[in-house]
Amino acid sequence: MCNQFNTSSMNYTVRDSTREDCRDIMRLIADLSEYEKMPDEVKLTHKELEEDGFSSSPFFKCLVAEVPEEIQSRDGHTIVGYGFYYFTYCTWKGRVVYMEDLYVMPEFRGKGIGKALMSRIAQIGRARGCVRMQFTVLDWNKPSLDFYCGQGALNLTAAEGWQLMRFEGEAFEKLAQATN
Amino acid sequence: MCNQFNTSSMNYTVRDSTREDCRDIMRLIADLSEYEKMPDEVKLTHKELEEDGFSSSPFFKCLVAEVPEEIQSRDGHTIVGYGFYYFTYCTWKGRVVYMEDLYVMPEFRGKGIGKALMSRIAQIGRARGCVRMQFTVLDWNKPSLDFYCGQGALNLTAAEGWQLMRFEGEAFEKLAQATN
Repeated sequence: MCNQFNTSSMNYTVRDSTREDCRDIMRLIADLSEYEKMPDEVKLTHKELEEDGFSSSPFFKCLVAEVPEEIQSRDGHTIVGYGFYYFTYCTWKGRVVYMEDLYVMPEFRGKGIGKALMSRIAQIGRARGCVRMQFTVLDWNKPSLDFYCGQGALNLTAAEGWQLMRFEGEAFEKLAQATN
Repeated sequence: MCNQFNTSSMNYTVRDSTREDCRDIMRLIADLSEYEKMPDEVKLTHKELEEDGFSSSPFFKCLVAEVPEEIQSRDGHTIVGYGFYYFTYCTWKGRVVYMEDLYVMPEFRGKGIGKALMSRIAQIGRARGCVRMQFTVLDWNKPSLDFYCGQGALNLTAAEGWQLMRFEGEAFEKLAQATN
């Protein structure tokens, strides 16, 4: 799958990622975690990303946005954004496409690349029979909230009160070992 | 997979669901949507549940809790609870097991059935290499929040500010059709 875009100011391609893109995806994952002010949270290894995404039963899918070499980033990169997704399920409505991450390098923002990645994920979800697309955003991340809401996204936490919960570390271990 | 439990007051079994359980699962999904005060939201059909969960590439997995016929519910049911889950992915930590629904019929609560379903999901997730289990709860649902937090769950919306977002209906269609 590959979409070519040519906006007034920039050529770029949105395409499915391959195993060879993992180094770039890891770089962008780290960039996003810094933007989200939790850089120490990234524990994923390059090997895990490769194995979990590019084996016969992948846990996720990932799109990348690529620009021609002549307009590469200041530090020499041509993969300038990514959209990371997978399929989930809602017992009320059915199939759901879930966008885990959406990120575009700062120097390439404002060109429609983020919107193109997000639209492509929605398109893939729709083709697979999904009725909605879900994702999470940090409440202080006003530019992203404005961007998503401007496209018609609904904040379910604000509208209906949904809280995202997690078992991790010792609590997760204890739960997995519990016997009644 | 099947776990037999025999607590002081009740025998029950937690097991993988089969296609034949779909009618009971649909009934419990409807019960949960009433408890969550959104009964009109359930649009899923019995056929969709069967096709999406019990084909060669299932979108979800579901456990059921079953009691012997002699202690069936007042209206004659032996499937008295369910735990609905699937696998997702975190670009910071890797594999995640996601518990979409956890529900036990009111007359069978307080016997450890909910905890047993939840523990089994964590156990399955752990065996599959997951490092955490995630789920959502409505902010007004104090009994459930207390139950989960009592087991060590963290409310990420309260702690870090994560907001659950959604594109649906016209906004989702528009996004899927957008071209830059």
